[in-house]
Amino acid sequence: MLIRMQPQATAHETHAMRQHLHRLGFQAMALEYLGPGHFAAVPLAELAELPEAETAAQLRAGGHAIATVESLEAAGLASRSRRPEGTRVRVGGVEIGGEETVIVAGPCSVESREQLLATALGVRAAGAHLLRGGAYKPRTSTYSFQGLGRQGLALLAEVGAAVGLPVVTEVLATEDVELVAEHAQMLQVGARNMQNFPLLKKLGGLRHPVLLKRSPSATLEEWLGAAEYLLARGNDQVVLCERGIRGFDRYTRNTLDLAAVAAVHELSHLPVMVDPSHGTGRRSLIAATARAAVAVGADGVCLEVHVRPEESVSDREQAISPLDLAELMPSLRAIATACGRGVRRPPVREAEISDAAYCTM
Amino acid sequence: MLIRMQPQATAHETHAMRQHLHRLGFQAMALEYLGPGHFAAVPLAELAELPEAETAAQLRAGGHAIATVESLEAAGLASRSRRPEGTRVRVGGVEIGGEETVIVAGPCSVESREQLLATALGVRAAGAHLLRGGAYKPRTSTYSFQGLGRQGLALLAEVGAAVGLPVVTEVLATEDVELVAEHAQMLQVGARNMQNFPLLKKLGGLRHPVLLKRSPSATLEEWLGAAEYLLARGNDQVVLCERGIRGFDRYTRNTLDLAAVAAVHELSHLPVMVDPSHGTGRRSLIAATARAAVAVGADGVCLEVHVRPEESVSDREQAISPLDLAELMPSLRAIATACGRGVRRPPVREAEISDAAYCTM
Amino acid sequence: MLIRMQPQATAHETHAMRQHLHRLGFQAMALEYLGPGHFAAVPLAELAELPEAETAAQLRAGGHAIATVESLEAAGLASRSRRPEGTRVRVGGVEIGGEETVIVAGPCSVESREQLLATALGVRAAGAHLLRGGAYKPRTSTYSFQGLGRQGLALLAEVGAAVGLPVVTEVLATEDVELVAEHAQMLQVGARNMQNFPLLKKLGGLRHPVLLKRSPSATLEEWLGAAEYLLARGNDQVVLCERGIRGFDRYTRNTLDLAAVAAVHELSHLPVMVDPSHGTGRRSLIAATARAAVAVGADGVCLEVHVRPEESVSDREQAISPLDLAELMPSLRAIATACGRGVRRPPVREAEISDAAYCTM
Amino acid sequence: MLIRMQPQATAHETHAMRQHLHRLGFQAMALEYLGPGHFAAVPLAELAELPEAETAAQLRAGGHAIATVESLEAAGLASRSRRPEGTRVRVGGVEIGGEETVIVAGPCSVESREQLLATALGVRAAGAHLLRGGAYKPRTSTYSFQGLGRQGLALLAEVGAAVGLPVVTEVLATEDVELVAEHAQMLQVGARNMQNFPLLKKLGGLRHPVLLKRSPSATLEEWLGAAEYLLARGNDQVVLCERGIRGFDRYTRNTLDLAAVAAVHELSHLPVMVDPSHGTGRRSLIAATARAAVAVGADGVCLEVHVRPEESVSDREQAISPLDLAELMPSLRAIATACGRGVRRPPVREAEISDAAYCTM
Repeated sequence: MLIRMQPQATAHETHAMRQHLHRLGFQAMALEYLGPGHFAAVPLAELAELPEAETAAQLRAGGHAIATVESLEAAGLASRSRRPEGTRVRVGGVEIGGEETVIVAGPCSVESREQLLATALGVRAAGAHLLRGGAYKPRTSTYSFQGLGRQGLALLAEVGAAVGLPVVTEVLATEDVELVAEHAQMLQVGARNMQNFPLLKKLGGLRHPVLLKRSPSATLEEWLGAAEYLLARGNDQVVLCERGIRGFDRYTRNTLDLAAVAAVHELSHLPVMVDPSHGTGRRSLIAATARAAVAVGADGVCLEVHVRPEESVSDREQAISPLDLAELMPSLRAIATACGRGVRRPPVREAEISDAAYCTM
Repeated sequence: MLIRMQPQATAHETHAMRQHLHRLGFQAMALEYLGPGHFAAVPLAELAELPEAETAAQLRAGGHAIATVESLEAAGLASRSRRPEGTRVRVGGVEIGGEETVIVAGPCSVESREQLLATALGVRAAGAHLLRGGAYKPRTSTYSFQGLGRQGLALLAEVGAAVGLPVVTEVLATEDVELVAEHAQMLQVGARNMQNFPLLKKLGGLRHPVLLKRSPSATLEEWLGAAEYLLARGNDQVVLCERGIRGFDRYTRNTLDLAAVAAVHELSHLPVMVDPSHGTGRRSLIAATARAAVAVGADGVCLEVHVRPEESVSDREQAISPLDLAELMPSLRAIATACGRGVRRPPVREAEISDAAYCTM
Repeated sequence: MLIRMQPQATAHETHAMRQHLHRLGFQAMALEYLGPGHFAAVPLAELAELPEAETAAQLRAGGHAIATVESLEAAGLASRSRRPEGTRVRVGGVEIGGEETVIVAGPCSVESREQLLATALGVRAAGAHLLRGGAYKPRTSTYSFQGLGRQGLALLAEVGAAVGLPVVTEVLATEDVELVAEHAQMLQVGARNMQNFPLLKKLGGLRHPVLLKRSPSATLEEWLGAAEYLLARGNDQVVLCERGIRGFDRYTRNTLDLAAVAAVHELSHLPVMVDPSHGTGRRSLIAATARAAVAVGADGVCLEVHVRPEESVSDREQAISPLDLAELMPSLRAIATACGRGVRRPPVREAEISDAAYCTM
Repeated sequence: MLIRMQPQATAHETHAMRQHLHRLGFQAMALEYLGPGHFAAVPLAELAELPEAETAAQLRAGGHAIATVESLEAAGLASRSRRPEGTRVRVGGVEIGGEETVIVAGPCSVESREQLLATALGVRAAGAHLLRGGAYKPRTSTYSFQGLGRQGLALLAEVGAAVGLPVVTEVLATEDVELVAEHAQMLQVGARNMQNFPLLKKLGGLRHPVLLKRSPSATLEEWLGAAEYLLARGNDQVVLCERGIRGFDRYTRNTLDLAAVAAVHELSHLPVMVDPSHGTGRRSLIAATARAAVAVGADGVCLEVHVRPEESVSDREQAISPLDLAELMPSLRAIATACGRGVRRPPVREAEISDAAYCTM
């Protein structure tokens, strides 16, 4: 439930309310982004029956109302109505959900310092704003490369800092959350973990930005329901990412549901990105679908870029090169402009993009 | 099979070859768009076994080869490799598949002269190039309005001529093909009829342009296989139209598969349009998905436009008004330009779009 | 709309009512299966607006009510509530929808007299009740064998009569309906034509039993809506057939939706069959899914059986042999019994099933 | 990779081999169920490159081969070829995958001692072999009841022991694995966690039976790939459970893919259960689909049963009562017999099933 303290409520009353809620069996989380004095009160796991308080319209102290109680079931915290102007999420110095469309680029997996650094320099030179790369890799087969783990995290932090790009990387396990948060500016919840509720609950307790990918079988309601797990625990730094749903045609790896971007924008205030790499699984389709993503209003585009795509240890068929990205950028910029947005130019000039630029380190 | 006459083959030899094929049990259809002297030889329905000739590499007359024979199974006539530069389809004075992105607009159903004329004037003023409208309506329920039939066709022909827009309309029944072709410049095969093979065979015998919508459960292979029914009978004036596939989320009516546009462009030389109206089923999502369609490279966009959307007798939720279309056009033009194409400006100025413009006739 | 004449209405009044409906723009079809004096009044195609009569509660003659009018939109003629006891469809001497589960078997395509006769003898000996076989074949590729056509029909009629099994075969084209109806006891509408409304309208005008296969992308509502096209025109001899819907896994050709059988049984009074051959596309899965079909309550099972499966010209991977069918029958019978039904034993004894039995003719 | 020690290898050599593998960066897990001297060698998470050893055909000690190395990529440990006779999993005294079909029944959520005990007595009296119930509940909405947690586990253990039924319950979080394993005889991995690889890796290290539900968007390859995570770590006590995949029709909650049971039986040696409750989401369809599950060859059926279905706090629409289960059992038994299996009769007589039986404790 959502608790709104009355404007005239004192700090003491607010504190008392939180304690009261705690005694009733709720965890009360501050929701500062809705304004001062807002709490989400989430029932603790062990609570079988919700107390009557939940349905009460008002909570009282000393005979007068000090707070109102609202149900969150019908329209949750992720609902557009809660924040019509939209949410802006800051990742390092980069804002997602604002006037500028954001480009996230980097390798599927961190493979080595050389590979990551060369790729990072390449995508920065091409105009990307955030560096992505996987250290912990969820793989269909247990016999496939599972990522470099801690070593990969360290490389991401080092290379991100060196090239000046904030880092996005996936966290798979609840027990790795703190470690990953120390090394990356944004934590990705992969499609397979969209409904890994213990993981979402833990991330909800952080103030670290989260990139929440859509499960291939998730309805919009389920996707926003997953985001609600984060918001209800006080973390509104949530960016959604459409990456293709399960479809029946196998020419593409998944069916990229671009209309979902516009649909989620009308349902929710959260920014939405698109991942054409997983969405299509084919290098040859990435430029066209990235353009479509910007045109449909995506707040960002995530692309798998590898300095030598043909040598990528994972997702080889869907990786593009930094030069491919550089060639794509002007049309993304022009489309963003046509749609009333822009794509921020990073400080480096595009002329610097050359083999030399990312091979001489 | 594909028969290629040798360049030096005489008219007499070509004629003899056609007769020979006929005796073997094939229908030989000229494929002029592949160059002079090309035939598709399609086995007649009654033919149980293909004659050996099919696998022969060469057909001979007077001791020397006069033609080569190729299998069409592996890569059909719709394959990009057959015509790398792409096919351009002419509908009235409008070219589909060329430099310009084409806008097709009009009501779901023809309801009355007033409704059609007002809508047609509105979409022309907004910048549409072709007028669409349904006279024969395939409806899930037999108790729903099934269209005005012949009367609707007559109105389409009259209004199309009056406002100067070529007409696209659906044909449902084999026995209506000639009648519809007399009234419309382009014949639409609806999604439910994509594999209505008797209908496709009949349309393959015409030289009338066909708009072939994708069935909601069709793979790309099945869709192109349906086009092949037309091409193999000599009709290459085929435009494909993605209109949403069957998906699991019900927020949208269908799942608009925009990546399929780019995929079909690499597989086939046929132009591809997108129908965001059926693709999303929601008025509020049409502008964004139409923009994405242009960005992904669609050769045209089909939109359901009604002069008074809220009064539409069918597909009310997905109809936009002529003014909505007029507001959408500048961004479609800008995106087309950003992608290296354009959207032709019709002779009328946009300033003419007003209630007056389409209500005073 | 559904018109119910009052019990005391005279034949003259009934005739007058039909004429009245005709003048209002409706086609009035007798629905004897709902009892005497019932009509479905289906608006003619050219009718733009429904007359007020539809919403009137009563039609009057000479000052008193002679009929009541009901909307069919909400719950149509196919609805279980119209006939709680269920519909029984008679095909030759075989009843579908009664106490006995019916086995339909035969080759995908009629290939030759020898192939059809040997297969028909084999399936009869194994215990099948109806003979299936395709003369007009809808094929994804125009270059694939399209069936023997008229010649195939003649063979079906001849062989069906010779072995004593009523024949089920597909009709693809409206113009073939009469011809096919002369040669077969039941007409199949294939999955691709489930919403071929001109074909359904024509079949609705016959009193020939129809086997209506589900489109791979049809919801239950769409499937029953297609059946309604037949029922509303007076043909209630309709059997539905689940044959697999489009799914994302490619190990099976389709996803066999067996729960749909139970679902349709609660929604509609029409019998439902299951086609495990198309439903799975794999010979090795047919026995298990046929058993499941009987267990879920299917009124019949359609199986592709070929005397030499490995030589089948179409759907080779999913054909079983007559001996496979014979081996399957005892478990189908036992399951039917376990579910309170039976599988009628044909007059021939199973001991006759031998290579000799169907190879010596 | 799979390491097979030579039959003559000594215990010392086996030990040395494990140490050697460890030094190479692998975790070596004994696979006793493949016979003595078998190891799965799974690369540790931090391992970027697989050592050459993986591709070596033989490992040597003192100049002679002591072990062979096989790739597991192509056909994994779950492959039918590894154990053609099938795997039998023991849960308490109940065997899954043997001659008898196993019935798992119980409430969606543990709500109270009274509810659980009454339900458990009811399902035992009806003939169920295992008791299911959720203590940790994964819920689409964070505002829905999340289960009683530890208290629910304690009730499950207490009631399971009291009524004499082994307990199956879901584990959501890696950190809860030990706790849940102390309270339940079988651990369920829910559909949403099918690819929660850290959870699977942890469960792979136990010898506790695991019930691995299929994700609604999982292909068979992905499902078996998830099982492989368990098998490769030495836990072969794995039972798969089909519970419906994501489909496009909303009459049922999911599309129950019964053919998948037969398909997995030919691909893998692992037992497969079916959950008609989640598979259909409708009480009225459960009996028919449970019968079909037995007929298609399922090794067990999981059913949501609640002593008062209409009061269930979760999944109310799909819960049946103990009396419903009792009525269903005879047909399940008869079908199992028809398919050459049985359903073990528990010691209590069915006559005991009455309201009295489970309300007087």
